[in-house]
Amino acid sequence: MSAAPNRDSPPRESGVAAGSGVARPRVVIVGGGFGGIEAARALARAPVDVTLVDRHNYHCFQPLLYQVATAALSPAEIAWPIRSVVRRQPNLTVLMATATGVDADARRVFVGEHALPYDYLALATGATHSYFGHDEWAPFAPGLKQIDDATDIRRKLLLAFERAEWEDDEAERRRLLTFIIVGAGPTGVELAGAIAEVARQALPADFRRIDARMARVCLIEAGPRILPSLPENLSSYAARSLAAMGVEIMTATRVTDCDARGVETEQAGRIDAGVVVWAAGVVSSPAAQWIGVEKDRAGRALVGPDLSVPGRPEIFIIGDAAAVAGSDGRMVPGVAPAAKQMGRYVGRLVAARVSKTAAPAPFCYRHSGDLATIGRKAAVVKLGRFQLTGFVGWLFWGVAHIYFLIGIRNRFVVAFSWFWSYLTYQRAARLITGREGPPAPGRSSSA
Amino acid sequence: MSAAPNRDSPPRESGVAAGSGVARPRVVIVGGGFGGIEAARALARAPVDVTLVDRHNYHCFQPLLYQVATAALSPAEIAWPIRSVVRRQPNLTVLMATATGVDADARRVFVGEHALPYDYLALATGATHSYFGHDEWAPFAPGLKQIDDATDIRRKLLLAFERAEWEDDEAERRRLLTFIIVGAGPTGVELAGAIAEVARQALPADFRRIDARMARVCLIEAGPRILPSLPENLSSYAARSLAAMGVEIMTATRVTDCDARGVETEQAGRIDAGVVVWAAGVVSSPAAQWIGVEKDRAGRALVGPDLSVPGRPEIFIIGDAAAVAGSDGRMVPGVAPAAKQMGRYVGRLVAARVSKTAAPAPFCYRHSGDLATIGRKAAVVKLGRFQLTGFVGWLFWGVAHIYFLIGIRNRFVVAFSWFWSYLTYQRAARLITGREGPPAPGRSSSA
Repeated sequence: MSAAPNRDSPPRESGVAAGSGVARPRVVIVGGGFGGIEAARALARAPVDVTLVDRHNYHCFQPLLYQVATAALSPAEIAWPIRSVVRRQPNLTVLMATATGVDADARRVFVGEHALPYDYLALATGATHSYFGHDEWAPFAPGLKQIDDATDIRRKLLLAFERAEWEDDEAERRRLLTFIIVGAGPTGVELAGAIAEVARQALPADFRRIDARMARVCLIEAGPRILPSLPENLSSYAARSLAAMGVEIMTATRVTDCDARGVETEQAGRIDAGVVVWAAGVVSSPAAQWIGVEKDRAGRALVGPDLSVPGRPEIFIIGDAAAVAGSDGRMVPGVAPAAKQMGRYVGRLVAARVSKTAAPAPFCYRHSGDLATIGRKAAVVKLGRFQLTGFVGWLFWGVAHIYFLIGIRNRFVVAFSWFWSYLTYQRAARLITGREGPPAPGRSSSA
Repeated sequence: MSAAPNRDSPPRESGVAAGSGVARPRVVIVGGGFGGIEAARALARAPVDVTLVDRHNYHCFQPLLYQVATAALSPAEIAWPIRSVVRRQPNLTVLMATATGVDADARRVFVGEHALPYDYLALATGATHSYFGHDEWAPFAPGLKQIDDATDIRRKLLLAFERAEWEDDEAERRRLLTFIIVGAGPTGVELAGAIAEVARQALPADFRRIDARMARVCLIEAGPRILPSLPENLSSYAARSLAAMGVEIMTATRVTDCDARGVETEQAGRIDAGVVVWAAGVVSSPAAQWIGVEKDRAGRALVGPDLSVPGRPEIFIIGDAAAVAGSDGRMVPGVAPAAKQMGRYVGRLVAARVSKTAAPAPFCYRHSGDLATIGRKAAVVKLGRFQLTGFVGWLFWGVAHIYFLIGIRNRFVVAFSWFWSYLTYQRAARLITGREGPPAPGRSSSA
């Protein structure tokens, strides 16, 4: 065996602090999403010891999660070990663990049985799906926020086709091949388009008894139009494109119940379905509760102009967990670029405080644009006054997403996967994984 | 929605037969591994209706499973939907379902609540790990036969490093960073080499408190030498290469107990470990039991020279589930080329019987060679009298495996992944997935 010395320093009281002789200010960042990673990077040269805590060992590129859920990409193509992402940053320690609370007076974060001391704390804990008070719908209508959500939805989606192939009862088969997406923001629109493509392009030749093209894809939205964050002309372009792909768009339709066999709506009555995906609402993770700060309706912490918690200048909340107004007075949206900007801002602010240089001006969000892809050849893009649709929009969308992926390898692999799918109409990651058994033929009531 | 007609034929009594007007002989193949797929392909032009049943929706390239378990490849890179593999074969229906038994007198296979009638039956149900009568060891020492096994082992392996990074107790940390592989056949040797590479090359720069290079990798083998199916000179070359990579090889060592914290051995006493992987023995799936045929010690069905079951000329057993002697009198080994040859033979035999042409000569196994890779630049290869070791052997191993992968896309992606790992020493699929929580810091007893 190797006799290489253990690079370990004597453990501190917390058992988890970075190894350093001098007592430097300790920065704890909770969450390794876009905000947390950017905050950590912005502290690379600061004289601090940074600890980045996340319950997963990977950073996930959430904007492409829907492609994992629809079998186009593999999880490892859009997720990277956090340790690798920040390996070249010697003042940083990564801990895979679930943070459970904060003692703001004692300046400690609870992580399992440990209490992690901090001098500065950045909470970048993100958001999760909101069922608007109906958490009992969660098992029937999973959301899409994590890698495991995506592989769960992928399994449900592919199993619905497998079960339909077995099914003798016509009505039950029609139910199995009905896919409902609740919520028509970018995630809902992208999911609906991708599921329609799976059914119409990737699968038809593979089944003998069913015609996968007869699958019904319903996009249900409570508001008056899809993609409400985009201008009306782009929204109606997207609606036309989706309709051309066979997606049924049901706007001004409110879901009033979800169960194992479909949804109830106020306006369109009962819709039986094989798979229901929830893309309707998000609620912040409980970061605000941990430190007792005031919240908005979505559970986001109301932070100051420097993203710190009122009365606690050493605690910052960034990303989807924070509610802060942009320069135009509107709230900063819960998107990746916003989280990154907040992370970078807080990293620089802490670095400035530690080195006692001038603090940066209050946080100012720069909106870089809105985009959503609809299918194989269409996307809508809005950058300031600049708009793109159709094939050109789709190319722009693809290049932008590849540019923001981490690492040359992943950029190359994702670009290749897309190119291949484009040429062949195939989906490379059509695996039903997980220990759940195969479909039970004849027992059509299995969820 | 599309008004495309449903290509469905009226369901037969079984509910699952392929749609065809004329009553053609029905062939049921159970198992979509190497044997089952080849049997199905060999029947592509025969006037039969083939039903291929597998409990997974994918065919898995088992020889590279260890690379999924050690985070080098993603599951989708070595597994393909069975439906896609055989999509161009119109006489074939694929069913994702678990076969549970056979009524040989009534000529029916039980699949869930269905009874699938057949005129010819090929059982290609493969093998699973054998704990030599100690099935209670299974949760502590998982084997590597399926995609979900590989992602489970990957999770355990990566979590061991994450837990060790938290751990303050020196002895416990040493335990967590000890990896035991039981069984030194090709799978055990390849796993040991790959785990040593993960610890020594991919991870060291990513951890702060532990030195991943201090991980201990033990390869335990009850027999006198590793790779017993290869000649002694190749076996000792492999042992030297593994030792140079820091693998401790313990031959003539018998495991007498396994628990959540390590193994007991007869010769070397107790060895505490963070992860134990079982690569020691295989036992056939219960195909022989289903039809009451005589079995050998490994549970394999003793079949006739045409691979049919004695007294049941319409039932064939192929691949790892069958015990048949080769022309040299030795039993045909449980390897992929043997399963493929048996599958092809049975497919052709059934085609000949159906079209009443001359039946082929008895099955004759052609051994194509033995190979095992040891690490980044070494492999052992034996093809007849021809032997290769070292870098040249490794290149041969790589080219051979890429050649046998299904589909141009996967060949390209795997070749690229290997090339990239070779250049960078990195592993692309280092994700801890699954719903199991992160390591519980402080509670080191968690398995």
